[in-house]
Amino acid sequence: MEEWAVYLSGEIHTDWRNQIELGARTAGLPIEFSSPVTIHENSDDCGVAILGAEENPFWHDHKGAKMNAIRTRTLIEQADIVVVRSGEKYKQWNAAFDAGYAAALGKPIITMHEPEHRHALKEVDGASLAVARTADEIVQILEYVINGHLRGRQNSVAAE
Amino acid sequence: MEEWAVYLSGEIHTDWRNQIELGARTAGLPIEFSSPVTIHENSDDCGVAILGAEENPFWHDHKGAKMNAIRTRTLIEQADIVVVRSGEKYKQWNAAFDAGYAAALGKPIITMHEPEHRHALKEVDGASLAVARTADEIVQILEYVINGHLRGRQNSVAAE
Amino acid sequence: MEEWAVYLSGEIHTDWRNQIELGARTAGLPIEFSSPVTIHENSDDCGVAILGAEENPFWHDHKGAKMNAIRTRTLIEQADIVVVRSGEKYKQWNAAFDAGYAAALGKPIITMHEPEHRHALKEVDGASLAVARTADEIVQILEYVINGHLRGRQNSVAAE
Amino acid sequence: MEEWAVYLSGEIHTDWRNQIELGARTAGLPIEFSSPVTIHENSDDCGVAILGAEENPFWHDHKGAKMNAIRTRTLIEQADIVVVRSGEKYKQWNAAFDAGYAAALGKPIITMHEPEHRHALKEVDGASLAVARTADEIVQILEYVINGHLRGRQNSVAAE
Amino acid sequence: MEEWAVYLSGEIHTDWRNQIELGARTAGLPIEFSSPVTIHENSDDCGVAILGAEENPFWHDHKGAKMNAIRTRTLIEQADIVVVRSGEKYKQWNAAFDAGYAAALGKPIITMHEPEHRHALKEVDGASLAVARTADEIVQILEYVINGHLRGRQNSVAAE
Amino acid sequence: MEEWAVYLSGEIHTDWRNQIELGARTAGLPIEFSSPVTIHENSDDCGVAILGAEENPFWHDHKGAKMNAIRTRTLIEQADIVVVRSGEKYKQWNAAFDAGYAAALGKPIITMHEPEHRHALKEVDGASLAVARTADEIVQILEYVINGHLRGRQNSVAAE
Amino acid sequence: MEEWAVYLSGEIHTDWRNQIELGARTAGLPIEFSSPVTIHENSDDCGVAILGAEENPFWHDHKGAKMNAIRTRTLIEQADIVVVRSGEKYKQWNAAFDAGYAAALGKPIITMHEPEHRHALKEVDGASLAVARTADEIVQILEYVINGHLRGRQNSVAAE
Amino acid sequence: MEEWAVYLSGEIHTDWRNQIELGARTAGLPIEFSSPVTIHENSDDCGVAILGAEENPFWHDHKGAKMNAIRTRTLIEQADIVVVRSGEKYKQWNAAFDAGYAAALGKPIITMHEPEHRHALKEVDGASLAVARTADEIVQILEYVINGHLRGRQNSVAAE
Repeated sequence: MEEWAVYLSGEIHTDWRNQIELGARTAGLPIEFSSPVTIHENSDDCGVAILGAEENPFWHDHKGAKMNAIRTRTLIEQADIVVVRSGEKYKQWNAAFDAGYAAALGKPIITMHEPEHRHALKEVDGASLAVARTADEIVQILEYVINGHLRGRQNSVAAE
Repeated sequence: MEEWAVYLSGEIHTDWRNQIELGARTAGLPIEFSSPVTIHENSDDCGVAILGAEENPFWHDHKGAKMNAIRTRTLIEQADIVVVRSGEKYKQWNAAFDAGYAAALGKPIITMHEPEHRHALKEVDGASLAVARTADEIVQILEYVINGHLRGRQNSVAAE
Repeated sequence: MEEWAVYLSGEIHTDWRNQIELGARTAGLPIEFSSPVTIHENSDDCGVAILGAEENPFWHDHKGAKMNAIRTRTLIEQADIVVVRSGEKYKQWNAAFDAGYAAALGKPIITMHEPEHRHALKEVDGASLAVARTADEIVQILEYVINGHLRGRQNSVAAE
Repeated sequence: MEEWAVYLSGEIHTDWRNQIELGARTAGLPIEFSSPVTIHENSDDCGVAILGAEENPFWHDHKGAKMNAIRTRTLIEQADIVVVRSGEKYKQWNAAFDAGYAAALGKPIITMHEPEHRHALKEVDGASLAVARTADEIVQILEYVINGHLRGRQNSVAAE
Repeated sequence: MEEWAVYLSGEIHTDWRNQIELGARTAGLPIEFSSPVTIHENSDDCGVAILGAEENPFWHDHKGAKMNAIRTRTLIEQADIVVVRSGEKYKQWNAAFDAGYAAALGKPIITMHEPEHRHALKEVDGASLAVARTADEIVQILEYVINGHLRGRQNSVAAE
Repeated sequence: MEEWAVYLSGEIHTDWRNQIELGARTAGLPIEFSSPVTIHENSDDCGVAILGAEENPFWHDHKGAKMNAIRTRTLIEQADIVVVRSGEKYKQWNAAFDAGYAAALGKPIITMHEPEHRHALKEVDGASLAVARTADEIVQILEYVINGHLRGRQNSVAAE
Repeated sequence: MEEWAVYLSGEIHTDWRNQIELGARTAGLPIEFSSPVTIHENSDDCGVAILGAEENPFWHDHKGAKMNAIRTRTLIEQADIVVVRSGEKYKQWNAAFDAGYAAALGKPIITMHEPEHRHALKEVDGASLAVARTADEIVQILEYVINGHLRGRQNSVAAE
Repeated sequence: MEEWAVYLSGEIHTDWRNQIELGARTAGLPIEFSSPVTIHENSDDCGVAILGAEENPFWHDHKGAKMNAIRTRTLIEQADIVVVRSGEKYKQWNAAFDAGYAAALGKPIITMHEPEHRHALKEVDGASLAVARTADEIVQILEYVINGHLRGRQNSVAAE
């Protein structure tokens, strides 16, 4: 495989994606990253900004959510690996939704969260193939999966 | 169709399922309901209770989550309709996960939640075919979908 | 096969479904018929009648259309054969939509319409396995497909 | 994703496709557009022009419709997004058919039509993820979905 | 499994199906057999008999072939096992077609033919799980597959 | 769900299946068990016994293996849950094969083996949802999954 | 779409493939053609030539047929369009098999044969989207499907 | 097809993969080979090396097995052909697992093993399309499948 497509789903309030992408680039990994739209206001308002305002906040959100789905559904379908990060802010039901979506499609999932959410995320973790805490761990996993390299080990053969 | 299989996913801390099942029975609807295991302690402990204790709470949860998945995955696959309820207690990431799983399988989804979660649940609602608030609304939807009846209307023909 | 599931999609302004079901019953065919909700007002209003009124007619329609989809999607998935009737009234884009949906699922389709729509329906007819004009023709097709009987012929062996 | 494949289904009597393609090119979007054959006479006559004349207009149409399906089926399967436009002329049952086909394949759909068809197109709109009116709105949606850009907003980060 | 669905595809000029069904009944096997329509004239004429005559023999055949496909496609989809018999008369391209169709669907296939066609049928045999010569061999295979019985052996445990 | 279909794959040299079926019956579980043919000689010889002897032991085995596949493939496809037991005797590559087959089909898998094979079976265990040691553990898992009961606990509500 | 993958299945005794490929090249069509191995002796002997001789001609053929299937199955899966030619020599059950395989996968099929086989090939033709006689007709169909061009017509717009 | 993706599954204790890749390169075959990680210690320890040590060897193995699955599942999904080698060392349940996984996905499989394992591997061989002994045989098969060449034969036409 020339390039691996990795979709980064989850909270859009920290720079965790940048950390992963930076680490992957540094390690020279052949990965094309994708994600949902990460500007919070754009993500919320895209529907009404393009298709017209809605007085009822429910339809305001609905229009936007479906427009975002055009993007996210496609990128998850294209992904080889889906990373799902749950963070502190907001309820992140959409990240868990993405995880379920990816699971049903048989995509390998890597979850990323702080240990304190372990219990609430047990089902999502149960469906994943690796549970990580930090961006660096994600990078290490990707490096191992793609190149067979383990940091600090001798003699890692590029097996692909 | 002789019977409709309806899977009720979501919080297990109120009797919302009983309300729906009672209403459906009263309306004489040919529905076979299913759900995850609803006894909270059993659901949490099933893994270790049967397969042996785990000191590390992560593996304790992991064993149980995967054992529960044997049940829930099968029932979602079997379902004609999946109802996803998000309630007040806990984070309910597993309900959102179920919703995503069902969505990828193309199952019709009905979500049920209080209006105050509207914004956080917008993606899940965006993927559903109806957003309800109460158990009674769910029953009315099922009655309409199965029999074509609308409460308070004349002349509802049993269309199936 | 004990019973064949036949979904009757299309205009809900004539009694064409009753004609087919009557003919099938008379011929003793083991068919379970299904259809969308056929009471026009219920079909239009189901969304707002159950989930609350919408000022904007677009959302009024939208709520109802998606609620109807819970029923129609399930029944098409369950069907062995999908009959699609286009009639004179309304634009029937939903019947053509059902036909496309069924085609992608690989369901055998029988179309039914007056010859004057031949040209406009050519794509839908192109995807179907039989193009009929009358309810009686549909009954004859079903009888042949299920029992191998051709009306007016000797010696039709029940081949199933 | 390097390029997004967008299939433009619908009426072939206005230049709506050109408007969208022009707008997308201007915005520098990495999109490969496709469509059915847009020369009306070719689309109607392809079957008989290549494979021989048919006296019966039904077979004339049938030959052509199936030959066109070789193209359209393949392009819809390849598409990441399907845009379905319903216009004023003709009955456009084939556009609704394409929409149903795309829906069953789980393709994200964007519909485009004038508000006066709202009611007749409610099922097709119900299955879509965005309902637009103009070519410009379609371009804006594509730009948002691909780049995360909203016109007139600051600070749109290229999220992919 | 309560009953096994077995589809018998192939030449309709000998009573090979009756032999198999008789043998299976005698052995008390829980099988529901199905087949294409076996009256040759009905199979050829069903299209024109119901939907109107066609001068051009190509369309005469075409109408009938597609009407038969409504039946055969459904029965193959329903089948657990597909038996494909090639005989002496006619070219039997439809039997080989059925075999390819079943193979793509992952259905277990049993072929049945005289040894002299071995070479011409090598691809079809290559895709099958057993190559038999006689109806009795087919019955023995079904009995083994369903009950674990081998004729003339002691102590066959009903393994299901 | 009225009945759960459980396929018991694996070594055929001990009575582990009988133990599970007995335990399930005692617990009144609505399960239909299935398995490969469990008489070792029949399983090895079915091909040649029915279709004729083969001098070359490779073809002897090949004929039998494919005939067995008619049964096992169908039963795995039908199963809701697949149990894979690895025992002491023989290499059991076919049990691991069944596990991989079931995994790709998304079937929930329960593995059963002695701890000493833990390392060699790590990939198969990694794809399963529960790793058990004894037949009794399997029965307990099935009872929990189907009824929500945990042995020795109060108040188990029949959740389905 | 940059390139269309077209699989040419069928008899390997005439140069019909060369004619089509030449015509396509002349017309500048962006097509990647593929086919089964066309050297008759290689196709028959590949199994034994590589893996060792077989005394029994059945296994000789079987080994080769399955080795050829590695190639043909992959190429059909990759194809956008499958052309199936039936010719005069041999029984061509493998071409009809390929057609059935492609049909179940939903691939658009074009059949090519002389009119005298019309009746025997009616099922295969019934599953195809165009029935042609000559290599030139196939080229014209491909040109129309890919570019929207009809020979001898004005103003063919490259619609893709 | 420009390049064929071939996944080499199986024992990681000999240089059999290198032999095949070398032979393929020498023959100028357009193949992209992939495999699991072949450094035994890395493959065993990847989980704990990245995500933290586990005292219980079961979880140590479990973490690693699932992390390896991220890689192997993806590569098998991407593969056009899967080669499964069983060797002398270890039990290789994971290779048989891969074979079952690939079989359910309909991937063409080539098995490679010494004759003495014939009986134990009969089910895996039964599901494959070629059973080889040496790396050179594998290379010959690939060369034949891709180019139509048989070593030592005249006049091999590049049929693709």
